[in-house]
Amino acid sequence: MEHDDMKQEKLERSAIDSQLAGLAGWSLDDGWTSISKTFKFASFVEAFGFMTKAALVAEKLNHHPEWFNVYSRVEVKLNTHDAGGLTELDFKLAKAMDKAAGQID
Amino acid sequence: MEHDDMKQEKLERSAIDSQLAGLAGWSLDDGWTSISKTFKFASFVEAFGFMTKAALVAEKLNHHPEWFNVYSRVEVKLNTHDAGGLTELDFKLAKAMDKAAGQID
Repeated sequence: MEHDDMKQEKLERSAIDSQLAGLAGWSLDDGWTSISKTFKFASFVEAFGFMTKAALVAEKLNHHPEWFNVYSRVEVKLNTHDAGGLTELDFKLAKAMDKAAGQID
Repeated sequence: MEHDDMKQEKLERSAIDSQLAGLAGWSLDDGWTSISKTFKFASFVEAFGFMTKAALVAEKLNHHPEWFNVYSRVEVKLNTHDAGGLTELDFKLAKAMDKAAGQID
């Protein structure tokens, strides 16, 4: 993953849990190094519309997802490669993606 | 994968080889049921620009890829689920993707 110009600090487990508590549907991997979520839509157009919104946010944050799409499903994985784990940027992007998917305001 | 309204016929190996001969960089899986290619770009913006062009073609063809993106790399897999293999639609989309990537005119 790319990172912001400002070096991001790897979050401790307690900070990760706190951030996750504010999100719905995101899973933490066993090593606490990434979060993942599968988004489901009604059509390819809706799925790709979501991806387009998310891509614009990702580029603005200079922090990009790993993602897989087939038809109406988008599987997303976020982490901060340079920090060797999760940083605040991942949670910022996660929230923006939930918003892009219309799941939060 | 989605398919066109017209039922697509599964291609025989000889027809697949003939179609593949007209493409560059696409690999056939062992069971001859899908073709794959990894596209590499200079940036996320270029990669997602490619995906956007390809998405519009896919929607028009009503035939959609399986694809994975991380930063400047896009991994694509094409097949026609309903035909249980490869059809002309897959090669039509493959050519459109090569075009979207600026690799052919």
